Amino acid sequence: MNRLDLISQIKQKKSFLCVGLDSDVQKIPEFLNDFEDPLFEFNKRIIDNTKDICVAYKLNIAFYESLGVKGWSSLQKTIEYLPKDVFSIADAKRGDIGNTSSMYAKAFFENLNFDSITVSPYMGSDSVLPFTKYKNKWVILLALTSNDGSIDFQHIKDINQQPLFERVIEKSKNWGNEENIMYVVGATRSDQMKKIREIIPDHFLLVPGVGYQGGNLEDVAKNLITDDCGILVNSSRGIIYASNDINFEIKVRDAALKIQKDMCRLLLNHKII
Amino acid sequence: MNRLDLISQIKQKKSFLCVGLDSDVQKIPEFLNDFEDPLFEFNKRIIDNTKDICVAYKLNIAFYESLGVKGWSSLQKTIEYLPKDVFSIADAKRGDIGNTSSMYAKAFFENLNFDSITVSPYMGSDSVLPFTKYKNKWVILLALTSNDGSIDFQHIKDINQQPLFERVIEKSKNWGNEENIMYVVGATRSDQMKKIREIIPDHFLLVPGVGYQGGNLEDVAKNLITDDCGILVNSSRGIIYASNDINFEIKVRDAALKIQKDMCRLLLNHKII
Repeated sequence: MNRLDLISQIKQKKSFLCVGLDSDVQKIPEFLNDFEDPLFEFNKRIIDNTKDICVAYKLNIAFYESLGVKGWSSLQKTIEYLPKDVFSIADAKRGDIGNTSSMYAKAFFENLNFDSITVSPYMGSDSVLPFTKYKNKWVILLALTSNDGSIDFQHIKDINQQPLFERVIEKSKNWGNEENIMYVVGATRSDQMKKIREIIPDHFLLVPGVGYQGGNLEDVAKNLITDDCGILVNSSRGIIYASNDINFEIKVRDAALKIQKDMCRLLLNHKII
Repeated sequence: MNRLDLISQIKQKKSFLCVGLDSDVQKIPEFLNDFEDPLFEFNKRIIDNTKDICVAYKLNIAFYESLGVKGWSSLQKTIEYLPKDVFSIADAKRGDIGNTSSMYAKAFFENLNFDSITVSPYMGSDSVLPFTKYKNKWVILLALTSNDGSIDFQHIKDINQQPLFERVIEKSKNWGNEENIMYVVGATRSDQMKKIREIIPDHFLLVPGVGYQGGNLEDVAKNLITDDCGILVNSSRGIIYASNDINFEIKVRDAALKIQKDMCRLLLNHKII
């Protein structure tokens, strides 16, 4: 999917919601275990009930890999089931030397046909470039993550007092452009968000942690939204585990709709729609 | 596998060789394509012909993932085929927030029963700790990699002139101990190697790039070897693609034996055996 199609989808659906399919066989409603592929049945129902109000799905690859061949098969079925006009994210956090990253690109862009993949920057340019070679495919590079451990290395300041996550953004933005690179930005402080927007005013950002992890949508929009919207905000557990009932998909839709309504208001306030 | 067993294997085989199974369907001898699972048949022959002279196998997960369900199945068959007394490494370079890293740990330590997994440090402690909870399993953390892109971030100096890769080692060594943490160290400069050994005198290091990538075994041993050996040196392409013939395994064994002989000499010189 290209940038224009993504933006047009955001405006049409009045939403910049990404639904995170961190689908865990231990946590899905029990009745689904009677099906041949419980994980796929779960995902199918989530997709059916959210695809008109979200613009992206993020599949957390670990949850599928933990089930081996069977999980990989659920992953394949899910990505095939996704509507083609919704942006798909392989949340895989890969990154290796060139010829190995090329193999990951093949796995996720060719075989599974994801629109994008999350990549860790630690190994530098040649671990990222194999992903930027694909037309209309995206690298979503980890910059500032929202977990506790992000403090360990991402905030280390260099001799010019610049923290590592800013160096990562500044350096890597030249490995592609705003048509094929996004960043994971789980910033909670206004000054951090503003600084990031100074360095990359136009790049799309994937913002984790709104909902279950308690991020504030209002603040995120205030500091990071652009004329093209420029953000995808993810919610996983808050939506997909909204209920354990046989009719869980109603609560799932309610939870997603609640966020989408807030997003619609923010898009209007910022004159994007 | 625990540390003592690894050391005893090194002494017994007079080798600290790790064979990298970066097995690529495009590169394996053609006759193997007549088998139902060419990748597994290739790996099987490599294992049969090297298991008495190497102490570890490193499976590059990207090469299996790029084939989807079929590749995952080859991976499972290969890990099941590996002799239990050889150290197994899932070269996966994973790393995510806590609950996701737990899923990767489940995938590689429980379901596939690998002894170890390579992990990227970028997301910090909670991305690594789920892997250190397993008894006799190991995290192999990326510190200084040997690819060109390693220069982009790993060498960034902080306000005390300490490069990031040293900070990574210094911080993370307390997330476990020399019984469950190793480091990927692709250092080429003596001063870097010496500094690393000052920070972690006893930890095992996984050293990539000897052979095909032209690393110098002599230098590596001189600077990094310890009384317990303390290093595993990997060779992938130089061994597994030594020949394309129907009898390729003979050349494979020759290539591995050549390295093992050098290693035997170094172990003797350093009075480890």
